[in-house]
Amino acid sequence: MDNFNFSIPTNLVFGKDRHKEVGSLVASYGVKKVMLVYDSGKFLVESGLLDEVRDSLKGAGLEVTELTGIKPNPVISLVRKGVAQAREFGAEFLVALGGGSTIDTTKAIAAGVPYDGDVWEYFANAIGVHPVFKALPLGVILTISATGSESNAGCIITNEELKQKYGCGGPALYPKFAILNPQITCSLPRYQTAAGVCDMYSHICERYFTNTKNTLAVDAMSEGLFKTILEIGPKLLEDPQNYDLRAEAMWIATVAHNDTVGVGRVQDWATHDMSYEITNINDLTHGAAVVIMLCAWMKYVYKHDLDRFVRYGKNVFGLETEGRDKEAVALEAVEKTEAFFKQMGMPVRLSEVGIDASRFDEMAKKACLNRGEIGAFVPLDEEKVKEIYQLAL
Amino acid sequence: MDNFNFSIPTNLVFGKDRHKEVGSLVASYGVKKVMLVYDSGKFLVESGLLDEVRDSLKGAGLEVTELTGIKPNPVISLVRKGVAQAREFGAEFLVALGGGSTIDTTKAIAAGVPYDGDVWEYFANAIGVHPVFKALPLGVILTISATGSESNAGCIITNEELKQKYGCGGPALYPKFAILNPQITCSLPRYQTAAGVCDMYSHICERYFTNTKNTLAVDAMSEGLFKTILEIGPKLLEDPQNYDLRAEAMWIATVAHNDTVGVGRVQDWATHDMSYEITNINDLTHGAAVVIMLCAWMKYVYKHDLDRFVRYGKNVFGLETEGRDKEAVALEAVEKTEAFFKQMGMPVRLSEVGIDASRFDEMAKKACLNRGEIGAFVPLDEEKVKEIYQLAL
Repeated sequence: MDNFNFSIPTNLVFGKDRHKEVGSLVASYGVKKVMLVYDSGKFLVESGLLDEVRDSLKGAGLEVTELTGIKPNPVISLVRKGVAQAREFGAEFLVALGGGSTIDTTKAIAAGVPYDGDVWEYFANAIGVHPVFKALPLGVILTISATGSESNAGCIITNEELKQKYGCGGPALYPKFAILNPQITCSLPRYQTAAGVCDMYSHICERYFTNTKNTLAVDAMSEGLFKTILEIGPKLLEDPQNYDLRAEAMWIATVAHNDTVGVGRVQDWATHDMSYEITNINDLTHGAAVVIMLCAWMKYVYKHDLDRFVRYGKNVFGLETEGRDKEAVALEAVEKTEAFFKQMGMPVRLSEVGIDASRFDEMAKKACLNRGEIGAFVPLDEEKVKEIYQLAL
Repeated sequence: MDNFNFSIPTNLVFGKDRHKEVGSLVASYGVKKVMLVYDSGKFLVESGLLDEVRDSLKGAGLEVTELTGIKPNPVISLVRKGVAQAREFGAEFLVALGGGSTIDTTKAIAAGVPYDGDVWEYFANAIGVHPVFKALPLGVILTISATGSESNAGCIITNEELKQKYGCGGPALYPKFAILNPQITCSLPRYQTAAGVCDMYSHICERYFTNTKNTLAVDAMSEGLFKTILEIGPKLLEDPQNYDLRAEAMWIATVAHNDTVGVGRVQDWATHDMSYEITNINDLTHGAAVVIMLCAWMKYVYKHDLDRFVRYGKNVFGLETEGRDKEAVALEAVEKTEAFFKQMGMPVRLSEVGIDASRFDEMAKKACLNRGEIGAFVPLDEEKVKEIYQLAL
């Protein structure tokens, strides 16, 4: 194991009806004035969730102002509006009701309120260069498990004028609490559900395929999570309203992305980097793009560490290994992975999503733009990335 | 899954040489005056660890006062002495260098310094009744993985005058950081090492054997940890200086006891409750006492949920289940568990540690004294506890 630091400072408040506790949770921080931030979709209103959250906040004696209008790829103009509104109102605490875009907007507002300059300065300087040590405290009610923003200390915002998309972060941006109520995810459409499940799987893969040796405990925990995803994924498509299955999925999404199974090893993330160039072109759901690249990536890298892929095949898919050629086992494990994604109704080839080889030069160039090489299990330069896109056709 | 809350607010600083960072870690909290608390054993001096810690603190420009003399079952008189010393010195931060006793003493001092009354009032009122919301911040350098006190918010102290042993706790008592350096554990004696490994195993058992349904992800993660312990335990006895094995053991000890695999389900803990009556009699190492009771407990309860024990046998020991009688599989799983503890050189019967049936009335009575029944998988009253002690003979 490599040296590492690990903590989960956010209070993860998990389970049925827990969003109704938001008022008492906020009040426990000794504050009175709260800004509630949420997206402009119909779901929050039609499901009654928005009203329940309002009732809980007001029932705890809190004064509430609201900011809405958040859309995917959240923008700095709305953050600036939120900073002004929070200051004018005298907000002492922020509550994000939504997914990654809402949480990230709320975090940016939290950073901006006590900051003397323009909040974009945090982003213009990028994560690590100008960390956020001072921010309003915030809490989250999660409506879709995806980005992990509910329990990390970063956020990503787009500057529409400058046409830049940057992140910022710092210890002050960890949400104080994040309410994870699986009931809220029961109405997620089939495709989004499947994409979410496959995305979790990929988050574990990015950590599991590593060159770091002696990672037995996190390997075994990862394999347990892989197997659980294989078990619940197809059941969830058959029975999307099943609370117990939604609960497993929501908790696995959190565990898969908060480094419980990532500590102590070098992680890869090339699959994610390559997938961003797909979604940049055609707005494909993130989970679908990741799946396409994960299948191709596995086919490209498995020879680099056959033993790792054999362990994966044996412990996750129960493949017979004795007396068999390692490469055959490894390839079968890759095939089984791809078959699972297909079973979940995901595309597994670029050709299925309308991308042909004519884009590969441009995609590979952009994927490697910042660092020259991406990934760690097998470092990938532009040429290698192009070969993987080719395998994904 | 049941509803739950989960967080790990303590920054777990894991790996080689990390104790040398203690100075910069403390200084990052903007403090100047530190009290270092440590036990009176020879190890800290002879290993050079104490000097390295002193150097790190002083090297970060911190002023240091020291309190030593802590022994197992830490006492309130030393806590009171520490409170007075910390106040006189003007300590702004406390550092515990040691195991559970040192950490608990340090936590109690942290609670006592800003408290107007006598610190024992926190304990006399017991956990939950009088929680600690205000305390000096503290950090930990762990020298033995056992109690989990390094990343929880509780402590247990003995009042020698009143002959009482009580706990107290509260959010202010979470250590800010806990340094886990596996190198420090490389010199642990064989028996302590084995007892620690078996104790970890029991901590997962207490969470795994539950009546809560639909706990797939935490089940699978638990089984991964069980298997890893079975793999590394015997290797560690053969090769005690092996850093990689020590690292696995140290991290599993943390994960097994911080509810990573315990969330969302009713936990049992009857095995631990019964084991305390052994250590009350003969000072047996905690891990050894737990192992004896775990074997007997399993034999007593397995019929309550054969499917659970079959799953355990199949997923942890790889037992063949098809076409076999469930009870046979369950019993084989229990036998395999006991065989592992034997392989680790642990006693598995009360008769091996000099306890006979003449003590069972008294032991069972004391074990059930506070709550009438202990455990949750199968609730156990005095009579049932006695039957389990009988099975442990």
